[in-house]
Amino acid sequence: MSNNGFHVAVVGATGAVGQQMLNTLEKRNFPIKKLTLLSSARSAGKKIVYKGEEITVQEAKPESFEDIDIALFSAGGSVSKALAPEAAKRGAVVIDNTSAYRMDPEVPLIVPEVNKEDLKKHKGIIANPNCSTIQMVAALQPIRQAFGLNKVLVSTYQAVSGAGNNAVKELNDQTKAIVNGEDIQAKILPVSSDEKHYQISFNAIPQIDKFQDNGFTFEEMKMINETKKIMKMPDLKVAATCVRLPIATGHSESVYFEVESNDVATSQIQEVLSSAPGIVLEDNPSEQIYPMPAYCVGKDDVFVGRIRKDLDEDQGFHMWVVSDNLLKGAALNSVQIAETLIEMNLIKAI
Amino acid sequence: MSNNGFHVAVVGATGAVGQQMLNTLEKRNFPIKKLTLLSSARSAGKKIVYKGEEITVQEAKPESFEDIDIALFSAGGSVSKALAPEAAKRGAVVIDNTSAYRMDPEVPLIVPEVNKEDLKKHKGIIANPNCSTIQMVAALQPIRQAFGLNKVLVSTYQAVSGAGNNAVKELNDQTKAIVNGEDIQAKILPVSSDEKHYQISFNAIPQIDKFQDNGFTFEEMKMINETKKIMKMPDLKVAATCVRLPIATGHSESVYFEVESNDVATSQIQEVLSSAPGIVLEDNPSEQIYPMPAYCVGKDDVFVGRIRKDLDEDQGFHMWVVSDNLLKGAALNSVQIAETLIEMNLIKAI
Repeated sequence: MSNNGFHVAVVGATGAVGQQMLNTLEKRNFPIKKLTLLSSARSAGKKIVYKGEEITVQEAKPESFEDIDIALFSAGGSVSKALAPEAAKRGAVVIDNTSAYRMDPEVPLIVPEVNKEDLKKHKGIIANPNCSTIQMVAALQPIRQAFGLNKVLVSTYQAVSGAGNNAVKELNDQTKAIVNGEDIQAKILPVSSDEKHYQISFNAIPQIDKFQDNGFTFEEMKMINETKKIMKMPDLKVAATCVRLPIATGHSESVYFEVESNDVATSQIQEVLSSAPGIVLEDNPSEQIYPMPAYCVGKDDVFVGRIRKDLDEDQGFHMWVVSDNLLKGAALNSVQIAETLIEMNLIKAI
Repeated sequence: MSNNGFHVAVVGATGAVGQQMLNTLEKRNFPIKKLTLLSSARSAGKKIVYKGEEITVQEAKPESFEDIDIALFSAGGSVSKALAPEAAKRGAVVIDNTSAYRMDPEVPLIVPEVNKEDLKKHKGIIANPNCSTIQMVAALQPIRQAFGLNKVLVSTYQAVSGAGNNAVKELNDQTKAIVNGEDIQAKILPVSSDEKHYQISFNAIPQIDKFQDNGFTFEEMKMINETKKIMKMPDLKVAATCVRLPIATGHSESVYFEVESNDVATSQIQEVLSSAPGIVLEDNPSEQIYPMPAYCVGKDDVFVGRIRKDLDEDQGFHMWVVSDNLLKGAALNSVQIAETLIEMNLIKAI
C-alpha cells in the first residue's frame, strides 16, 4: 500500500474474477492507500495476500462501504443489486462486473478504448460489459471508426472460467475421470441453477446462461444489447450464438461483419487494427499465425487474426478474435475503468 | 458374407474412416459376397475381423480391383488419384471419401438425401463430400425446398477424428499429459505436413487444412464449393470459418441462413426439419434440449436445434447442427451412396 491513492474494495474477492482483480491491481501498481476485501458470509474469514500483506476477507454489508473510494464488484448480480447502491450512496464509485446494471440507461457501460467519454455521465455506478462483448467491441470499434459498420454476426467459443471457479473444477474433474476411464459427474454447466447439466469435457454446449422466450440465451442477448449500447448504435444489426467449450480460459469468436464503405481491402482492416489500442494483430496465414486461446492466457490484449474479405459481399469480412476472458473480459477492463476515471480527473481520493 | 451381393473393396481399411466403413457395412447388413481390404504397403498384412471372419489387409495396387464391384476409398487424396481410375477402368464403381474428385465436373458429389438423382450421371467414380459439408447440406436442403435459400454463413466446431487416428491420439496424449502435469507434444495438428503444430487439448485452432491465397483454408473452401455443387446453386452466397476443437468425435456447426420467402416462422423451419430424411430435430430450449457432439457419437442422424429467427433480418435464421463426423460425415454417407446405387438399379453384381 502507498500513502497516496485510493481506498479500494474488491467485492467477491475469493471468486475467479476477484482473484484476477487483485492480480491485476498488483501487477499494474494501482494507487491503493487501503484495500478492503469483501465477500459473501460463506467466504468471510479467508485470508488473501496482497503485495505481501495478509488481508482477511470480510462479509460485505452496506456499512462496509463507509470509507471506500472505488468498489470493484464481482460477486454475482444479486449482490450488486443489493449493495452497489449502498456503496454509491456512501460516496464510492462502483465498477460492477455483473449484468445487474449494464442495460440501465443511467449507468455507463464502458470499454475504455471504445467509449471512455461516457464515464463523465456516471452517477456512482459504472458497469463492466460481458466478457464476450468486450473483446468483440474492442476489435470492431477501430474498424467502425475507419469504415463504418452495418452488421455483426458472431459465433463464440467460450471458456468455462467465464462460469466461475466451480465450472473450471468441473471441467478438470470430468477430464481426469475420462482419462482414467471413470464415470463423470455434471452438476454445474451449462447453468448451475438450470435443471439439466451436461458433460463439458470433450463436448460443446450451445447454451450459456438461461434461455429467453425468443430462443436466444441471455448471454447471446447480452452480446447483442451491450454491443449496441457501448458503440451507441441502437440500430446496428447484431446476432450471436454462444457456445461453451472444454477450454479453461480464453474466449474465441468467429465474427462476420459488414462495413459501410465500399472496396475496403483486407490489408486496410489489418492496418487499422494493428495500430488500435489494446489490440494485437496476429494475422499471417502463410506462417500459420493466428490467435488461439491456449496462447492468450495471462495476456492483457485482444488478439485478432484470420481477417479476410467475404467472397460474396464486398462490404463483408470475417475475423477471429481471442482474449483472456478473466483479464480484458473482466478484471483488467474493470481496473482500466478505474484508471481511466483517475486519468480523466473524474475521481479523487477522499 | 452371403452368396448374393457384391464384391466390395475398402481402401484405407485400417484408418479412422475405414474402420467406421466396416462397422457400417456390418451394422447395415450390406449385401457383400466378398470383402477385400486394401491399404498402403505400411499397413498391409494387418488382420481385421468382419462378421466373425478374419481378413488380411493387402497392399492396394491397380490389379487389386480386377474383380471388384464397389470400391470404397478412404486412404487419402493421393491414393484415390492414383488408384480410383484404375478401379473404375476395371469395372468397379468407386465411392471416394477424399477430396480428390469432389470438384471434378464429371464426378457426382452425393448426399443421398439431397441429390441422389446425380448418381445417374456417374462414370465410375462418385465422390463423398467433406464431413462438415454433408451435415450442413442435409439440414439446409429441406429448408431450401420449402422456403428457398439465399445465403449461408457457418462457423464450425470440429472434432479431431476428422484429421485421422493420429490426431485423436494426439488429443488423448496431450490431455493425459496436462492432467498429469507433464509437458505436451504437438506434431500432428492442425495439419501434419504444415510447419507449425499447436496444442489442441484445452485449445481452439482456427485452421483446418492448409491456407489458400484468399485467406480461407481449403476446408473452408470445400464447405463453400461443395455446398454449391451438391445443392446445384452456383450463385448461393456461402462463407465458412472452420475451427478444430478438443473433441474426439462429433462436428458442430453454428449456421446462419437466409431463406427466400418472407414471414417464415421458426416453427415452420422446425416442422420441415422434423419430417426430413436423416434429420432429428432436438430443439426445445425450455427443456434445455439441443444437440451436442458428446451425445451424437455412434448415431447415424444429423441433429438440429437452437433454431431461431434473426432479430434484424426477416429472412434470417440461426441453427446448430451436430453429427458424428465419422458416420454421416464419412463412412455412413459412403455406404448410403452404395445402397442408393442398388436401390436405383444403377449397379448390378457382376
